[in-house]
Amino acid sequence: MEPLPTLDAIRVARQRIAPHIHRTPVMTCASLDRMAGATLFFKCENLQKTGSFKIRGATNAVFSLPDEMARRGVVTHSSGNHAAALARAARERGVPAWIVMPLNAPLAKCRAVEGYGGQITFCEPTIAARESTAKQILEKTGAVLVHPYDNPDIIAGQGTATLELLEEVPDLDVVIAPVSGGGLLSGTAIAAKSLRPQARVIGAEPANADDAYRSMRSGRLEPLSAAVTMADGLRAGLCQRTFDILRERVDEVVLVSEEEIVNAMRHTWERMKLIVEPSSAVAFAVVLKNLPALAGKHIGIIVSGGNVDLERLPFASAESKAAGS
Amino acid sequence: MEPLPTLDAIRVARQRIAPHIHRTPVMTCASLDRMAGATLFFKCENLQKTGSFKIRGATNAVFSLPDEMARRGVVTHSSGNHAAALARAARERGVPAWIVMPLNAPLAKCRAVEGYGGQITFCEPTIAARESTAKQILEKTGAVLVHPYDNPDIIAGQGTATLELLEEVPDLDVVIAPVSGGGLLSGTAIAAKSLRPQARVIGAEPANADDAYRSMRSGRLEPLSAAVTMADGLRAGLCQRTFDILRERVDEVVLVSEEEIVNAMRHTWERMKLIVEPSSAVAFAVVLKNLPALAGKHIGIIVSGGNVDLERLPFASAESKAAGS
Repeated sequence: MEPLPTLDAIRVARQRIAPHIHRTPVMTCASLDRMAGATLFFKCENLQKTGSFKIRGATNAVFSLPDEMARRGVVTHSSGNHAAALARAARERGVPAWIVMPLNAPLAKCRAVEGYGGQITFCEPTIAARESTAKQILEKTGAVLVHPYDNPDIIAGQGTATLELLEEVPDLDVVIAPVSGGGLLSGTAIAAKSLRPQARVIGAEPANADDAYRSMRSGRLEPLSAAVTMADGLRAGLCQRTFDILRERVDEVVLVSEEEIVNAMRHTWERMKLIVEPSSAVAFAVVLKNLPALAGKHIGIIVSGGNVDLERLPFASAESKAAGS
Repeated sequence: MEPLPTLDAIRVARQRIAPHIHRTPVMTCASLDRMAGATLFFKCENLQKTGSFKIRGATNAVFSLPDEMARRGVVTHSSGNHAAALARAARERGVPAWIVMPLNAPLAKCRAVEGYGGQITFCEPTIAARESTAKQILEKTGAVLVHPYDNPDIIAGQGTATLELLEEVPDLDVVIAPVSGGGLLSGTAIAAKSLRPQARVIGAEPANADDAYRSMRSGRLEPLSAAVTMADGLRAGLCQRTFDILRERVDEVVLVSEEEIVNAMRHTWERMKLIVEPSSAVAFAVVLKNLPALAGKHIGIIVSGGNVDLERLPFASAESKAAGS
């Protein structure tokens, strides 16, 4: 197994990916500060290329490959932001990307992958079908599998968001990032604990997909059971690699309910005028719990992405409210 | 009648209001550039205090008043962004604001006015009732009426957005702003034609509320007939003062359909991850018409505001689509 990524790896990643991605803004909002009783700094990866932080890790992974490996292309199976990110990273390097997607993936996601030049292979919507289809492509093409989080180059890439955040706001007391497979939270924790050891690092997780929370409690990797959450980016479970990093560097995982996610999302849309996806709102939802430990603190929040289907928003329509009353 | 506002008045306004408002960012988006076939610079007044540019004019008007006048307070009748803006500007100066609102005003707008400390007087939802209620308050309190656009201090204040935009992007070929009562477009045109005479200034107007378009064609102030448009900020008509400025300084008013407005709004939400209200999307909708005169140009777009009711969005829901198919 490769060594765990370090701050140096994150610094190298930043250099490597800088020409290909945005340096996203850090935004503040007085009315959300009042609501939270704290001073909040939002690192806006929803304004990132491809609409999420995933392009950081994907670009770092693709550009880390030696030429002869890269030439054969990259493969992943994903129906989410990593798929589009990998397709775009491959296009930036001028190499092919094969993306295995389930037949029931949202059309918008397929279009995004195609728009970045990715070649989609559809499969049945099961994990087994996804893995076997990816394996067939790997065998046929000799391409490299780029896992969405069980990969040190991905983790180092995701950590660059926190590196930028701490450059801009060095005196953070707390950094919060959502946790799913743990790639983003691992990179966040490595960057934060190296640059600002006294900062508390918190993972934000939907109560309906709480494997990280349970794993941190029990001290061993707990399996993810059914993940029925609107936070569609947070339906994966930790792997041993990310769990090992979290256990060492993350102070706490805090759970939020579906109602708290929608509430946080609504406030961010209404007050900041920023479109954040449910998976991102999970981090702000932790702040809205008004935990005593967060009162008055300087809190950095990784706003992980902004890809939503505008035709399936979780805000009740006036019509449906009227019908229900 | 007061003299028309000048670039100097806009510069003075900028000094006066700077401590009270945001300097909003100018954003760009590669995928919207591709769609438009031009290079676009979005001046993001949706990220402004109170969620719209209206705070610029209102703050300038309130802080321009001599102390003894200001002390008596300010009055307006409005159900929109100007109401909240005036309430906040008055609070910043520590003077009372009386806001006359129709009984059917959206609850969210009333809450915003209250949140800024404005005192609401409700009236029947007719122009006559609004004006007579405002008159009664004026007589009783001796307060000053601050009209949302028929006021040179308001116009100078609204022009500060373009002043900032041109400081950041001096080489614009075109500046586009929405037009309703014409306060924003007047200030925009004065700033743009003074600082960058060769820039084309375009007003963007809903075809369903086309009095500015018709007035520019006929050369006289045409009345606004029924304004049935989702662009709820653009349902007012020009006044003589703003029409005089537009006739001299605006090159063209371009009409857009309701469908074009929704389409522009959707693209801005999806690609820029920014919440813009329908009235703001009208300006980007002009660009999406792909007019030959705009091809390849550097275009500044005043994104006027971001206040929307998330429960009444114009995007068809998956359910309603299914029901309609």
